[in-house]
Amino acid sequence: MSWELTAADLPDLARGATLLGTGGGGDPYIGSKLVERVLGDGAITVLDPDELPDDAFVIPTAQMGAPTVMIEKIPAGTEPVLALRTLEEHLGRTADATMPIECGGINSMIPFVVAAETGLPVVDADGMGRAFPELSMETFAVYGVHGSPLALAGERGERVIIDTGDDDRQMERLARAVTIRLGGVGHIAEYAMSGADVKRTAVPRTISMALALGRAIRVAREQKRSPFEAIADTLAPTLYSHVRELFVGKVVDVDRRTTEGFARGLARIAPLDGGDELEIAFQNENLTARRGGELLAIVPDLICVVDHETAEPITTEGLRYGQRVRVLGISTPDLMRTPEALAAFGPAAFGLDETFRPVESR
Amino acid sequence: MSWELTAADLPDLARGATLLGTGGGGDPYIGSKLVERVLGDGAITVLDPDELPDDAFVIPTAQMGAPTVMIEKIPAGTEPVLALRTLEEHLGRTADATMPIECGGINSMIPFVVAAETGLPVVDADGMGRAFPELSMETFAVYGVHGSPLALAGERGERVIIDTGDDDRQMERLARAVTIRLGGVGHIAEYAMSGADVKRTAVPRTISMALALGRAIRVAREQKRSPFEAIADTLAPTLYSHVRELFVGKVVDVDRRTTEGFARGLARIAPLDGGDELEIAFQNENLTARRGGELLAIVPDLICVVDHETAEPITTEGLRYGQRVRVLGISTPDLMRTPEALAAFGPAAFGLDETFRPVESR
Repeated sequence: MSWELTAADLPDLARGATLLGTGGGGDPYIGSKLVERVLGDGAITVLDPDELPDDAFVIPTAQMGAPTVMIEKIPAGTEPVLALRTLEEHLGRTADATMPIECGGINSMIPFVVAAETGLPVVDADGMGRAFPELSMETFAVYGVHGSPLALAGERGERVIIDTGDDDRQMERLARAVTIRLGGVGHIAEYAMSGADVKRTAVPRTISMALALGRAIRVAREQKRSPFEAIADTLAPTLYSHVRELFVGKVVDVDRRTTEGFARGLARIAPLDGGDELEIAFQNENLTARRGGELLAIVPDLICVVDHETAEPITTEGLRYGQRVRVLGISTPDLMRTPEALAAFGPAAFGLDETFRPVESR
Repeated sequence: MSWELTAADLPDLARGATLLGTGGGGDPYIGSKLVERVLGDGAITVLDPDELPDDAFVIPTAQMGAPTVMIEKIPAGTEPVLALRTLEEHLGRTADATMPIECGGINSMIPFVVAAETGLPVVDADGMGRAFPELSMETFAVYGVHGSPLALAGERGERVIIDTGDDDRQMERLARAVTIRLGGVGHIAEYAMSGADVKRTAVPRTISMALALGRAIRVAREQKRSPFEAIADTLAPTLYSHVRELFVGKVVDVDRRTTEGFARGLARIAPLDGGDELEIAFQNENLTARRGGELLAIVPDLICVVDHETAEPITTEGLRYGQRVRVLGISTPDLMRTPEALAAFGPAAFGLDETFRPVESR
């Protein structure tokens, strides 16, 4: 069912989207402040995919760049709409709605910036079902909708259109190169598609799920209930039905560097009671959780680091020595675990040797 | 006066364009082979700028990238026209003619590839009057015609449009980033302008001058006359009227590396009779000729290394240990020596501390 989002929803949506960011995705708090500034007392219609006409024209919008840079480089606010307008002009067609390409992290918010400025509705769905580091890692692409032409806007009004036909990886490479030259952050509009294609290729209802997660954590805290039980209860009836607590411990080391436009590295978490440490490898987002010789969870399943008491999700940039944390593994929807999907954003897509094994199978 | 170019002219044009390449510009021989293949027995109209209607619509075409890569990466042949068509489509207007942005090196030939494939005429003028390493180093830009929007085409059919308004340096940076990701070479269409703007901002008759230079060198050799006198006689009545022999010697060292999409380095030439060596610094093209403490010539004047007997021009990639060479300094036209022009492509634009001093003033 379609619903209205107001500024009051933003803190909960930001919290849920940070969890779905699995360590990366950029900080949705910054994005929520952009939405708040434009939205004021207004409301944005969030369209359930089932209520989207098949012939509607949807242009997803997002920010691209390294989350480490996004923190220091707050967008001017005009770029998200400039990216949309540039693609509309190029295609000679105006959008009926926008949509996230990525419901985790700051990209849960960018379509709401666009919606607040243009009056467009936002479709309650996305193409990653979490956060991923590359523009080609989309269920849209997996199921036959390609990203080109992509429009990219920079903070000084730069406008770039990239068309690589059905080669989404080449589109990613060219857009990444431009984004790096723009100072590390660019705003994009891409994967323009029909309502019918949204229903066929997107991960449905991920915005409402992020909002529900963020709200459940907050309410549980207020009511002195376990936020971890609240997370599990919220996810149980969704496409993300399995949650596992993989580890409890204390952050002892984070090795992070920004290379080729990505934040890459390794976080180590020591158990409170001795024994092997947990190692989390990341490329913007968390890729693997490993303890001793054992792989506990692997991409595209969600590996989420949260505060050990409040369940507040912690991004890779937020990790600090001595923090006490829990590490959660959350199952991804089945449409993200097909062989085609795993080829696009499974372990091999990140140069990992391991085969995907569902987190709930352990 | 307008004239017709046929395949028989290509070797002479290539030789003259290599001289105007001042060490860089990419190898016009490869470009001439591309033209030959498409042109066959046909002819291309070369339009004198004076005969170009003021309301004609001209789209210059070129290749961009490091000459060191261009040698190893021969274009498929479809990219130059794809770049033109992409810009035409974006602007909603078809070109009446194409033109070089750079008459030195391979970019003397790319507009003829486009002309041979499309039937368009080529305007006898360009925006550099020689070769320069960056897209923003154009008399067009100096006198108020900007490069955006630029269209860029890759060998796998990639199409990119870049619009940075009147910021041509940012256009250069973004296009360079894309070109590097395309493997080091891209084809471009940019600086679209009216016939009136061509007359106002371009360096006129540089194609016919390159052809005349190449022909004069060849004919002098055939007639056992001095090719150096032939060069001086050919240039005397043009906008490039002063030629100075700066040095005669033997190549003893070339330090060259390809970084950030450019070939940068230093060539050292030892005199045949002892004394100080000549040092030539280059960024794709030769920037300075220095002997001991004395600066003999500096960009934008032309510093050309040629064979000491035949006057065959030698690019930086063609320099070999032991080669006997002469180094010529050639004066650039006055419209390339104004304060605005020197700001765009004078010494400071290359990070050099020296002030420009005309080669003929020594």
